[in-house]
Amino acid sequence: MSLRDEIMEQPQLIGRLLANQWDHIQMVANEIREREINFIFLSARGTSDHAGLYAKYLWGAHNKLPIALAAPSLFSIYQQPPALKNALVVGISQSGESPDIVSVIAEGRRQGILTLSLTNAPQSPMAQAGELHVNVMAGPELAVAATKSYTAQLLSIALLSVALKGDKERLEEIARLPHALQAVLDQEEHIAGLAKRYRFMNQCVICGRGYNYATAYEWSLKLKEMSYVVSVPYSSADFRHGPIAIVSQGFPVFAVMPSGAVFDDLLVLVQNLKQEHLVDLLVISDRQEALDLADVAIPLPQDIPEWLSPIASILAGQLFAYYPTQAKGFNTESPRGLHKVTLTQ
Amino acid sequence: MSLRDEIMEQPQLIGRLLANQWDHIQMVANEIREREINFIFLSARGTSDHAGLYAKYLWGAHNKLPIALAAPSLFSIYQQPPALKNALVVGISQSGESPDIVSVIAEGRRQGILTLSLTNAPQSPMAQAGELHVNVMAGPELAVAATKSYTAQLLSIALLSVALKGDKERLEEIARLPHALQAVLDQEEHIAGLAKRYRFMNQCVICGRGYNYATAYEWSLKLKEMSYVVSVPYSSADFRHGPIAIVSQGFPVFAVMPSGAVFDDLLVLVQNLKQEHLVDLLVISDRQEALDLADVAIPLPQDIPEWLSPIASILAGQLFAYYPTQAKGFNTESPRGLHKVTLTQ
Repeated sequence: MSLRDEIMEQPQLIGRLLANQWDHIQMVANEIREREINFIFLSARGTSDHAGLYAKYLWGAHNKLPIALAAPSLFSIYQQPPALKNALVVGISQSGESPDIVSVIAEGRRQGILTLSLTNAPQSPMAQAGELHVNVMAGPELAVAATKSYTAQLLSIALLSVALKGDKERLEEIARLPHALQAVLDQEEHIAGLAKRYRFMNQCVICGRGYNYATAYEWSLKLKEMSYVVSVPYSSADFRHGPIAIVSQGFPVFAVMPSGAVFDDLLVLVQNLKQEHLVDLLVISDRQEALDLADVAIPLPQDIPEWLSPIASILAGQLFAYYPTQAKGFNTESPRGLHKVTLTQ
Repeated sequence: MSLRDEIMEQPQLIGRLLANQWDHIQMVANEIREREINFIFLSARGTSDHAGLYAKYLWGAHNKLPIALAAPSLFSIYQQPPALKNALVVGISQSGESPDIVSVIAEGRRQGILTLSLTNAPQSPMAQAGELHVNVMAGPELAVAATKSYTAQLLSIALLSVALKGDKERLEEIARLPHALQAVLDQEEHIAGLAKRYRFMNQCVICGRGYNYATAYEWSLKLKEMSYVVSVPYSSADFRHGPIAIVSQGFPVFAVMPSGAVFDDLLVLVQNLKQEHLVDLLVISDRQEALDLADVAIPLPQDIPEWLSPIASILAGQLFAYYPTQAKGFNTESPRGLHKVTLTQ
C-alpha cells in the first residue's frame, strides 16, 4: 500500500461504512437524542481537526447544534478545563493516541457528560475512553499524511448528521457518492500533469467557505506536510479582513468553490483577485463560469450536493499534493520530521 | 495620528478603561451571572477574532466557560443558524459594522438569548444590536491595521473575566500593566534595528500556545497585512501534527514564549527546531534560557502574569511588523487592497 493506493481506495469507504456502521451510528444517534444537548464540545488536531470544521458547518446547519472546538491545553497542560454542562463531548483522531485529545474525553466522563469518539483504531486509548465510539473504518493507513482516514471521518460525521435528523433522502445522497468520487479520481492524469507547473511554487493561499472551509484547511496541510509549500487557508470573508494584502501579480491563489450557497461570494472574490490583483488562479469547481476564470481548472462532477462536496473536492487536493511531491523527489510516504502518530500534551 | 502613534499610545488604554468602564463591566457581569449560561457563542473576524481566541483561553481557564467560535456564514449566507439555548452570544468588532457579525447578534436576540457586543463604536449597528455593550475605548483608530483596538479588546475581555469571578487580586495585576507595556515599547530602537535583517523574508512561521496562541495569530496577521509576508501561526502542538515538515535550515521561525504553564512545551519545540532543523529563530520571552537559543532575541519584562502576557507580547509584534514595512517602502497607514471597515456577508 502506498499513499497513492490509499487515495485511490476512497470511493470504497462509503459502501464499507454503510454496510458495517450505519446501524451502530443510528444507535449512537438515539443515545444522543435522549440527552439534553445544548452544544457539541469537539477536540481534535491536524487533519482530524479539519473534519471537526466540517462537523461545525454540517451539524450546525442541519442539526442546529452549535460546535465549540476545544482548546486541548486547558485540559492537559493548564488543568483548568471549562464546565461542560449540557455538552456532548466529541473527540476525533485517526490513531486515538494523542494524550491531549484523550484528556478532553476523560474530563467529559469525569463531569458525567456524554462522550463520543470517532477513531480509526477501536482499541486505542481514545476509543476506550469515550462512552460512545464510532469506528470510521478507513482500514490501515500506512502513509504518514492522512487521506482516506479524513474522508472516512467526513463520511462518519455526515452519517451521524443524517441519523440524528432521521432523513432518508440525504442517506441516498451519500449512497450515490462513490460515482462522484471516482469521477474526481479519474482526473488523475490531468492533475499529475500539473506537477511541472507548480514545481517551484513555495507559497500559496487557498480559499474556501462554508462546508469547504474544511477543504481549504486540509488541502493546505497536505501541501505543507508533503510538498513543503507554505500555504495558508482562508474563508473568503476572513481573507478580505486583512490577509488579502499579501497577494500581488502572479501570486498563486487556489479556490475550492463547488455549487452551493457560498458560490457567489467566492465568485466575486476570485473575479476581483484575477482582474484587479492579477493573481495566478487555480479553481476546483463544477461551475463553468468559475473554471473559465482560472489559469488552471480542475472540474468537479455535476450534481454533488453542497453538504457532501468536501468529500469530493479534497480528493483533487490530495492528488494535487501528491504529484509535485513526487516530482520534487520528496518522500510521499513519510515526510521529513513527521511520524504517523503524534503524541502531544 | 499615525500607526506608530497608535502603537505608542497603548499603555494609556488601561487607565482609561478602568476609570470609565470598570463599573459598567461589573454591571454587565451581574447581568450575565443572573442567567443560566452553559457556553459562550462568539462571533468576530480578523483581529477581533484573535481577541476571541484570547477569550477562549481566559474565560475557559478562569471562568470555566466553554467558548464556541461562530461560523458567521451559517447565519448570513446559509440562513441555517444553530439553536443557541443557554448560550451567551458575544460579538467583537472594532467598527461594529460587518453584516455577517451583526447577523449573529441579531439571531441571538431573535432566539431570546442574552447578547453582548464589544466594539470601539458605541453608535454602530453591532453595538445597537446587542442587549449588553462594552465600549473598549481605544479612541479613534485611523490606521487600517488594528493595533490599539486589539489591546483594548483584550483588556475588556480580561476585565470581564475579573468581574465575573469577582477577584480583586487580578484587578490589581491589570492596574500594574502600564509599566510592563511601556517597557516593551521602550525597546523600539532595538526592534527598529531588526528591520534590515528581515527585509527580504517573504515567509515565516509563528508559534505560540495557550494564552499566546492569540498573539501568534495577531502578529501573523500584522506581518501579512502590513509587510506582505506569508506568515503562518501555529500552536506548538498543532505545528507538530504536520506543518513542521515545511521547515528546513534557515527557515524563519518566531516563538512567543513568556513564562507560564506552556513555556516548557514551547522550549522543547524551539530546542528541537534550532538544534535538529537549524531554523533561523526569533524569540519573544522573559526567560533567559529561551532568549539564549535565539538568533534574534526580544526580551519581555519580568513578572507579567501569564494570563496578561498577550497584551504585552503583541506590542513587540506590532513594532516588529511596522519597521520592515517602512523599510520596504510600503504604506504603513493603508496597506494595499484594504479598507478600515470591511463589510462581509
